[in-house]
Amino acid sequence: MSKDSVKLLNFWPSMFGLRVHYALDLKGVSYDYQEENLFNKSKELLEANPIYTKIPVLIHNGKPICESLVIVDYIDCVWPGSHKLLPEDPYEKAVARFWADFGDKKLYDAGSRLIRAMGEEHKKAGEDLKWALMKIDEALGTIAPGKPFFGGDAMNFADVALAPFICWFKGYQKVGGFVLPGPEEWPNLYKWVDAVNSVDAIKISTPSHDKIAEFAEVIRKRVIGAA
Amino acid sequence: MSKDSVKLLNFWPSMFGLRVHYALDLKGVSYDYQEENLFNKSKELLEANPIYTKIPVLIHNGKPICESLVIVDYIDCVWPGSHKLLPEDPYEKAVARFWADFGDKKLYDAGSRLIRAMGEEHKKAGEDLKWALMKIDEALGTIAPGKPFFGGDAMNFADVALAPFICWFKGYQKVGGFVLPGPEEWPNLYKWVDAVNSVDAIKISTPSHDKIAEFAEVIRKRVIGAA
Repeated sequence: MSKDSVKLLNFWPSMFGLRVHYALDLKGVSYDYQEENLFNKSKELLEANPIYTKIPVLIHNGKPICESLVIVDYIDCVWPGSHKLLPEDPYEKAVARFWADFGDKKLYDAGSRLIRAMGEEHKKAGEDLKWALMKIDEALGTIAPGKPFFGGDAMNFADVALAPFICWFKGYQKVGGFVLPGPEEWPNLYKWVDAVNSVDAIKISTPSHDKIAEFAEVIRKRVIGAA
Repeated sequence: MSKDSVKLLNFWPSMFGLRVHYALDLKGVSYDYQEENLFNKSKELLEANPIYTKIPVLIHNGKPICESLVIVDYIDCVWPGSHKLLPEDPYEKAVARFWADFGDKKLYDAGSRLIRAMGEEHKKAGEDLKWALMKIDEALGTIAPGKPFFGGDAMNFADVALAPFICWFKGYQKVGGFVLPGPEEWPNLYKWVDAVNSVDAIKISTPSHDKIAEFAEVIRKRVIGAA
């Protein structure tokens, strides 16, 4: 791996960027890191992702790869190593991809609206977020009964895609003004959260939950101020 | 393949459902088809896709697979056959996945807003649609210079994901009240459209462009009527 040049362009609170951190760290791939200022993006980012001009971008031996799930898939192909993220079985693979995508379509979307929306829309976003987390609890119980991860005993593609939202839970609750149901109601989800948080590779890049919560409040205040 | 039970639940104008038709037809997989009434969805659809309750769903030997790109990926794993859709090379695979996803994020989104939005938003949607098509023209010229498809001489994952939008072009123009730039401005896009339209497997399930245009106008009238 020493011959490879691997660089991640990112912005620290991004759950999409964290997916890339997690995949690289689970594989033990060494990489350079470049923090981006989203109000003054680097020339490198603009050139590497001209379509979306968004982080994260992985630059591997000079070639840019964009979109977090595409990047995680790429990492799994290039460095299969001892920790394969995508199951070999086509159906299990499809299930992992479905739940990874659920993170984008439902979890991110609800969290994003919770931070930015007002009034009824804000309330609806909180309900949608709880629904999404409940569905993840149910899915864990169905897909991997008795096991901690979507991948069973080890994190797979779905786990890597969904785990970055864990450090946002506190922020969601702060800006949402609610308390999420506890482990007695969502046993699989809490077991998964504990299991994810205890993986050494995950600890490397996860920001402090308090720092994320402060960041969520800053965004919300900025939105309210601009309204 | 005779032992396999393969069934597609779909609604005929869906570009997402067409992706599944195209992938199966390119592979030569036989399948049953069930047309869904979206105002009165079948019990089978509701049970097969409880999270989104949406088409398309592929049911293979009793197991449901949901979300069109996940389904196409699954089809490519289960029936690799002579026509592989995802490139073996990790970077080429990432590029194909990126442009397939672009269909969801930019092309579908702009087209959907064009049909449903009014006033300035409607105008903006038309501009966004033209931008997305221009980017596809540019991408074809960069990724596969001199070749008809994203996959070079044959359709790949990106082609299958984007090709279903072709039969919507006429509808987009009708409800958008504009004419798309011609082949002199978008040579790669027009070459791609001609190449896609001449693939026998694509002809099997593509609805008539006029029928899609009528359908787009019906949706728009319904939206205007409800506004």
